Amino acid sequence: MTSPVPDPSPELLQRALAVRQAAGQLAQTSDAERQAALEAMAVALEQASEEILAANAADRQAAEADGLPAALAARLVLDGPKLAAAVAGVRQVAALSDPLGQRQLHTELDQGLVLERITVPLGVVGVIFEARPDALVQIAALAVRSGNGALLKGGREARRSCAAIHAALQQGLAASAVSPQVLDLLTTREESLALLKLDGLVDLIIPRGSNALVRFIQDNTRLPVLGHADGICHLYVDAEADGGEALKVALDSKLQYPAACNAIETLLVHRAIAADFLPLAVAAFAAAGVELRGDAGACALGVPLPASEEDWGTEYSDLVLAVKLVDDLEAALAHIARYGSRHTEAICTANPATAEQFLGAVDSAGVFANCSTRFADGFRYGLGAEVGISTQTLPPRGPVGLEGLITYRYRLRGHGQIVADYARGDQRFLHRPLPL
Amino acid sequence: MTSPVPDPSPELLQRALAVRQAAGQLAQTSDAERQAALEAMAVALEQASEEILAANAADRQAAEADGLPAALAARLVLDGPKLAAAVAGVRQVAALSDPLGQRQLHTELDQGLVLERITVPLGVVGVIFEARPDALVQIAALAVRSGNGALLKGGREARRSCAAIHAALQQGLAASAVSPQVLDLLTTREESLALLKLDGLVDLIIPRGSNALVRFIQDNTRLPVLGHADGICHLYVDAEADGGEALKVALDSKLQYPAACNAIETLLVHRAIAADFLPLAVAAFAAAGVELRGDAGACALGVPLPASEEDWGTEYSDLVLAVKLVDDLEAALAHIARYGSRHTEAICTANPATAEQFLGAVDSAGVFANCSTRFADGFRYGLGAEVGISTQTLPPRGPVGLEGLITYRYRLRGHGQIVADYARGDQRFLHRPLPL
Repeated sequence: MTSPVPDPSPELLQRALAVRQAAGQLAQTSDAERQAALEAMAVALEQASEEILAANAADRQAAEADGLPAALAARLVLDGPKLAAAVAGVRQVAALSDPLGQRQLHTELDQGLVLERITVPLGVVGVIFEARPDALVQIAALAVRSGNGALLKGGREARRSCAAIHAALQQGLAASAVSPQVLDLLTTREESLALLKLDGLVDLIIPRGSNALVRFIQDNTRLPVLGHADGICHLYVDAEADGGEALKVALDSKLQYPAACNAIETLLVHRAIAADFLPLAVAAFAAAGVELRGDAGACALGVPLPASEEDWGTEYSDLVLAVKLVDDLEAALAHIARYGSRHTEAICTANPATAEQFLGAVDSAGVFANCSTRFADGFRYGLGAEVGISTQTLPPRGPVGLEGLITYRYRLRGHGQIVADYARGDQRFLHRPLPL
Repeated sequence: MTSPVPDPSPELLQRALAVRQAAGQLAQTSDAERQAALEAMAVALEQASEEILAANAADRQAAEADGLPAALAARLVLDGPKLAAAVAGVRQVAALSDPLGQRQLHTELDQGLVLERITVPLGVVGVIFEARPDALVQIAALAVRSGNGALLKGGREARRSCAAIHAALQQGLAASAVSPQVLDLLTTREESLALLKLDGLVDLIIPRGSNALVRFIQDNTRLPVLGHADGICHLYVDAEADGGEALKVALDSKLQYPAACNAIETLLVHRAIAADFLPLAVAAFAAAGVELRGDAGACALGVPLPASEEDWGTEYSDLVLAVKLVDDLEAALAHIARYGSRHTEAICTANPATAEQFLGAVDSAGVFANCSTRFADGFRYGLGAEVGISTQTLPPRGPVGLEGLITYRYRLRGHGQIVADYARGDQRFLHRPLPL
């Protein structure tokens, strides 16, 4: 099997091993020690703010000279207010309750043989992010809070900003109980590619960037990847919807941030309400600059452009929306099952039974009734901080908070018990639940 | 990228889609309906026992004619008592508490905007098992209990047994609220390979077979795989161990079932106790027919064969054990970190502080003090039924019960709320926890 991913260099292996060893120490620090480490990181960022802003100015200058696309250049910007917000974010993560050391299961297997399941850090995460340098601050805070080491790789265009931020974070950690070695910054493209092959040294890859980046990573690593490639979200306007409310929800779901993965790409409208609802919706979306593409029924009611088969499976991430008429709830569910990416789907209906049918039948990470798909977000869900959004079926799925950076471990404490005694029937298991 | 895995045929895609659709219905059945379906499966197996045993006899005859290796032929056997045990297993799975519809999170995001997180089935699992036909019964019961469809592929040598069992299971389901289409049996090698490419139709692959099978599958699918390739487990005998107890635990950890993944492959002995402990251990293991391979220190104390570097990273799955002397706990931990597969490790020590240090520092799925590594098992842990054992870092890890077949979904019920109001600050989130 040929692969575009190079093998890790001995130097990278050495660095990854150093992070892993430092992470092993970090995993055994107390809640208070990790909170203090985050405070030290925040203070160090504040103290280094001049250097960081200067480095970012240099990155932006270089980006302009290189003719970087405007969208990318905008994401590169780290000014005073953005840096202050990032520092405030570090303190917010510090204030989250400790995700480690939680007992999830506690069972007396037999007298003097007690099993427990305890939350522990994953170990080391590999994070690849594009442009946005404040992502480095956020992910470093989440990693240290959850007891994980991190190998971090920012975009080439942000390399001066990332280096300045990383230096500050390490300076902060040096004044804490946590080794600065838990955070290493990769700088070359070869390193970030080889990161995908650090089996046994890295436990999870978190890509924060374009769909193309995520898909490339998913195709080129055996390590688990937390992320989502597609977000093809649907809003279904039922026959019994309140038209005004449905239009408000539809507009927000598309327009509040069209490039977001939880924005809708397809609007499904029940045929019985279409003649009332759709002309108003067409006018409102047109006024907002959204290009509508519809099936024959939708076009007959004013949608200006015809949709092709391809449209139903496309994430536009832009001011484009596909519109389709459906005969009933079943048809809406069938369309979603066929074309959806299991991210987030919503229904608007005044009929509670229909809402519950929809909530029960759609197998996406988020299923909503009578509210905007844009609520699918870790902060809005109240998770405190977000590692990413996952569209995989297995947990963690949907918006993922700190729990995406932890796992658990079974601990069994005995007094010389052996299995042969139980296999022979000389001893029997109690399996008595103990208090958590 | 070339791949040994063929693309799914249109016929296989059609069948997988049928399973997926049937699974969608199954996901919405009640606890009682799924329990009744399992009882119907159990009854149908009992009624078809004559046909099943005859089919198994034919498989065994063919295996003998084909000169199948003895170990494989032994696993093929399904006699009356084994079938009765498998049927009893179906009823045990039916009696487990419902894994579906559990509310894990319940938050009032704002007035009239309520979020909940509910357990739901994965969807469809693809199960590939070798030889042992009773595995088909067990996995079918677990799949239906947890609301999942299953594409099942047994070993070629067990094809008559599997067909007879599958026919009985479908007959049983036909008399229940669950469609027989939730269980499909694949029969050709091409189908089982193409199963690995059913992205979007299959949510999890569960391989039940040799390390080579698991590794091949992990290397050839983008679907998540629940399983373990390696089980290189260690027992560390500390300076302050009770020698007699440690020897008993060591013998059980190796001998109670040497081919199991949770049997130890390496014994680490603190240098301070080695002169007392090792000669007794060497004699006991030799008497049990175990071949010992040691480092220089171990050989000086009676281990007959020298170990090579390769031994420390080998899963023998046989009556072979590597032995190494270590200077202290740190050295034992370093050896485990370097060569272990993060499956299960144990310490024997009478010093509780040392035990806790070990329990805190080893990052395997199971970490044990003063008991046999062979306890690492879903039934012994009290999980009721086991889907498999996972050595990945992310949950589910270790022995995995029904929770390996479920995931969760966020449901949000509102009254027309849109994100723009919160982004503008006109509305604020409450994030008030509600009772589960």
